Amino acid sequence: MNKSIKDNIRVAIQGFSGSFHEKAAQHYFNETLSFVYCNTFSEVVKASEDSELSDGGLMAIENSIAGTILPNYQLLRNSALSIVGEVYLQIGQQLMALPGQTISDIKEIHSHHMAIKQCEEFLKKHPNIKLVETEDTALSAKKIKNEHLKGVAAIAGEQAAKIYDLEIIAPNIETVKNNFTRFLVINPEQRDNHEANKASLLFSLVHEPKSLSDVLITIGEYDFNISKIQSFPIIEQEWSYYFVVDIEFDEIKELYNLIEELKHKTSSLRLLGSYKKGITI
Amino acid sequence: MNKSIKDNIRVAIQGFSGSFHEKAAQHYFNETLSFVYCNTFSEVVKASEDSELSDGGLMAIENSIAGTILPNYQLLRNSALSIVGEVYLQIGQQLMALPGQTISDIKEIHSHHMAIKQCEEFLKKHPNIKLVETEDTALSAKKIKNEHLKGVAAIAGEQAAKIYDLEIIAPNIETVKNNFTRFLVINPEQRDNHEANKASLLFSLVHEPKSLSDVLITIGEYDFNISKIQSFPIIEQEWSYYFVVDIEFDEIKELYNLIEELKHKTSSLRLLGSYKKGITI
Repeated sequence: MNKSIKDNIRVAIQGFSGSFHEKAAQHYFNETLSFVYCNTFSEVVKASEDSELSDGGLMAIENSIAGTILPNYQLLRNSALSIVGEVYLQIGQQLMALPGQTISDIKEIHSHHMAIKQCEEFLKKHPNIKLVETEDTALSAKKIKNEHLKGVAAIAGEQAAKIYDLEIIAPNIETVKNNFTRFLVINPEQRDNHEANKASLLFSLVHEPKSLSDVLITIGEYDFNISKIQSFPIIEQEWSYYFVVDIEFDEIKELYNLIEELKHKTSSLRLLGSYKKGITI
Repeated sequence: MNKSIKDNIRVAIQGFSGSFHEKAAQHYFNETLSFVYCNTFSEVVKASEDSELSDGGLMAIENSIAGTILPNYQLLRNSALSIVGEVYLQIGQQLMALPGQTISDIKEIHSHHMAIKQCEEFLKKHPNIKLVETEDTALSAKKIKNEHLKGVAAIAGEQAAKIYDLEIIAPNIETVKNNFTRFLVINPEQRDNHEANKASLLFSLVHEPKSLSDVLITIGEYDFNISKIQSFPIIEQEWSYYFVVDIEFDEIKELYNLIEELKHKTSSLRLLGSYKKGITI
């Protein structure tokens, strides 16, 4: 990340103040940040590429329940950005309202439809509360604060409760507790990182049956720890697909050896980035 | 599928009459069907398991743009259902309204938020039309027909236009034309299918680094055509994850040999089903 001594790092994220993206970025950089709030992941990628606007970005790539956000790999593939870091965030959904209220005072709950869906079991116990779908979890919290809405609660992360002075009236109401999201830190420049012990590779295969078997054996023989492997078939072109592999290594030289070998067995190959393996927060 | 000579096959699907699931099922079975319409994929699985309710079901599992619907693998894993077939459907979004109207008459467009999102570029050219998010694409078409709504159009599949006597006033308005969805045909009984040339395996790995390398080499050495490979990390349990592989084979004996070999290298292993490779419609 480029920064002068006095300026904050400017990080492009999807969403608003108080969002899970903001929380993940704050933990990753562990310093005061300026945020470039974007409406879509496509805008995050554009803002991350533009050094006038930002010093890079942070973008969700997969969730332990919903799976890979495939379009975000497409966005990375079509950009010149590199993955320079990652962070895993446990997603907890909190029910929050203006202080002094209890669940029996609540007539409406506002949140993004994904958050509402994640809290279905809790919400079933309160069938008389009206559910209102909104654009963003944190934005729902902000609205309650700004418009001083009594009888209305929002489902959002705890960071939103702090920012908007709301009280958590029912904590961790998500149905499935094991809910983690992985975020990638993206930057126009891939710097040499001596701490790098993980890499993401994206490649496509030649139009031949069994070409994947050959590649699997090649990767397997390198004895890396493989933390992710996923094919994205291009369905109308038989035997043509993209392939993402995340590997963990001790020596970066071994990674480069694998890349050299795979070049002859793939129709395109790109190192999306090498970076330090992320922690879970 | 169980059926008496006079009864239609009863197929559980998500969505309403005129939906993409219904179209996929009609092409797969190629005969007159009765549908069990379900609100959620979870209900589809339950209805498919219940022989009083249905003779099985059909469920989307992945889309070429959005990727794998990971929760649907979880639903299959927690059920006793087998995959007995598959079909690929090209998704085209049509703008439809009561006959005799043109795009300049339209004040509102109703559809599911995913369909609206898929048509963003087209909709940008008509910034004065109000976009109304609804539960379902086909349901939006039905409402226009039933309430005889002039000035309102729906985004849905062409099958909805036919069923609800609407006119397509702008065809194929989806931004990305290469949009395919893969559907699985699911049934409580895995029958011997002499036409089977494809199988889906689901397994988890022992908690050891490099266990995936070992499995990749084993699968690779069998020389199968592999049409899908995907790992789902259980993020808080390092080195513990699920793994889905779709393979195509000439001899089912080879599949059983692979399964025997993998049993010793995985902590759990399940043949989700063997079936005839699907066609694209």
